[in-house]
Amino acid sequence: MLATIKDVAGAAGVSVATVSRVLNDNGYVHEDTRTKVMLAMEKLNYYPNEVARSLNKRESRLVGLLLPDITNPFFPQLARGAEDELQREGYRLIIGNSDEELEKELDYLQTFKQNQVAGILAATNYPDLTEYSGSLYPVVFLDRTKEGAPSVFSDGRAGGKRAAEEMLRGQSTSITLVKGPGHLQTAQERFNGALDVLQKAGAQFNVISAASFSIKDAAILAEELFAAYPETDGVIASNDIAAAAVLHEALRLGKKVPEEIQIIGYDDIPQSGLLFPPLSTIRQPAYEMGKRAANLLLQLIKKEPPKETAIQMPVTYIKRQTTRKDDHHE
Amino acid sequence: MLATIKDVAGAAGVSVATVSRVLNDNGYVHEDTRTKVMLAMEKLNYYPNEVARSLNKRESRLVGLLLPDITNPFFPQLARGAEDELQREGYRLIIGNSDEELEKELDYLQTFKQNQVAGILAATNYPDLTEYSGSLYPVVFLDRTKEGAPSVFSDGRAGGKRAAEEMLRGQSTSITLVKGPGHLQTAQERFNGALDVLQKAGAQFNVISAASFSIKDAAILAEELFAAYPETDGVIASNDIAAAAVLHEALRLGKKVPEEIQIIGYDDIPQSGLLFPPLSTIRQPAYEMGKRAANLLLQLIKKEPPKETAIQMPVTYIKRQTTRKDDHHE
Repeated sequence: MLATIKDVAGAAGVSVATVSRVLNDNGYVHEDTRTKVMLAMEKLNYYPNEVARSLNKRESRLVGLLLPDITNPFFPQLARGAEDELQREGYRLIIGNSDEELEKELDYLQTFKQNQVAGILAATNYPDLTEYSGSLYPVVFLDRTKEGAPSVFSDGRAGGKRAAEEMLRGQSTSITLVKGPGHLQTAQERFNGALDVLQKAGAQFNVISAASFSIKDAAILAEELFAAYPETDGVIASNDIAAAAVLHEALRLGKKVPEEIQIIGYDDIPQSGLLFPPLSTIRQPAYEMGKRAANLLLQLIKKEPPKETAIQMPVTYIKRQTTRKDDHHE
Repeated sequence: MLATIKDVAGAAGVSVATVSRVLNDNGYVHEDTRTKVMLAMEKLNYYPNEVARSLNKRESRLVGLLLPDITNPFFPQLARGAEDELQREGYRLIIGNSDEELEKELDYLQTFKQNQVAGILAATNYPDLTEYSGSLYPVVFLDRTKEGAPSVFSDGRAGGKRAAEEMLRGQSTSITLVKGPGHLQTAQERFNGALDVLQKAGAQFNVISAASFSIKDAAILAEELFAAYPETDGVIASNDIAAAAVLHEALRLGKKVPEEIQIIGYDDIPQSGLLFPPLSTIRQPAYEMGKRAANLLLQLIKKEPPKETAIQMPVTYIKRQTTRKDDHHE
């Protein structure tokens, strides 16, 4: 038989209300009494458990994190940032991968609700779902944004612009711009930023669309790119995975990087510095984005009014060796 | 006021026991009655919740997954395999990163227990902890093993052997063998396998130790390797991250790969085929390992006697372009 709270009260010689106060850590309990209760719990193998506590309070110390796919190296960085921040306050993550499929996403949202998560961090492709606008739990969009909703994202437009500017500065004259999955606002923003700069400069360029951000699709994309536009001497990739595939394909075709072709990525995943030549890229502060989003969510959970709810983080250009030095120094 | 099970029973005009049967899906309940109860729950905003259910049954549909670090690309593969298998049976993952630190690991194990996980998958460095041998929940060691305990791992000894054999076949004569973190049995096994082959062949070789499997440490290791053993013409790396760093450093030093130096990795993470030259490596079936471990855990949760409890999975040599063709073909 499992021990009940009554058994604990009996063994400790106190009231059920006192045991409950100890369990929930609210109201005054004398230190000696608390010790007696804890000892009774231990003896009866009735440890204070989160499940019972969350039943009382209708919340748990769990936070749901929805990601497209943890095997894309950008997302583990986000997840670690969030986890490390939440851990400091005793919260833990349930992680779900949506594979960018609506059905999987809804399924995980159901799980989060059933486990009565304290809040949700969502790198969703479907920010307009009613599940994200209810009052059951606070939601922070991560690497995504939506008008009026709490969110943490990076400045995609500035990133796209910077990538295009660096291509032009390195004097590429036949640029291919890779467009990420179109339905993603973040991908759209960075694409538009680059487009703006190229158009204003009157540059010669082509556009090719990536079906997804996955590694498998990236290899196919890289082949198609050089088949369709063999004259390409500069590639603005949709992310570092695509850039790595393009770099690989360029070298395989015998092109010298960056002398004959410049390549610039997006994200700055940890592996990008280990490519050869090391990849020049636009860095999103993924770990910090995860931390900030978790921090914002914790404020919402504790009903502290947050200073800002739409947090746009800056991107930075990481110059490595797949872009040329600017013309003044060559 | 939150609705109680009594309120639901009252609104549905049935007994509390009937509501409980509906909630727990056990015992006969007439379909009409079930519908009445469900409607009453909905009306009172008392949806059947996993927390209440798990309190009754003292278990949840959550599985704890303990990993060293999700930012090492080997582990997201394991995690996805486990997640995809668990999802089919309605289980979800709580993921914790231990950073190979005992304190963090114990902290997560506490969380898992408090959330009354149905079971634990552990890529632990501390398989001997009493937390792993209790009867509260089943445990499956993943990418780890321990005498007599349920576990899924790959054949490290065969992998290490194969790596060394390929080095010798490609006729490297001054090999440097990278030893992974020594306290890990899996790292130890692959090291011993390689050592065996090199010693038996009377080969000339050196050993250098990697402090960890992390990317940051890998770059340092690669520099130290060529500083300490500049004559190296073959490297057996402890994993693909280390191999990528060594490849990068070798190219930076102007060495031709594989003509002047062969490099072989371990794991076959998704990025390895995108390196240039693409990395030859020993493949661990990470995704499948995650799936098998989850499958084994589900059997243990359901108290079905598993056919085998120590599942050793085969490794394969993936020949790409950082190793030379064997001598017969050159």
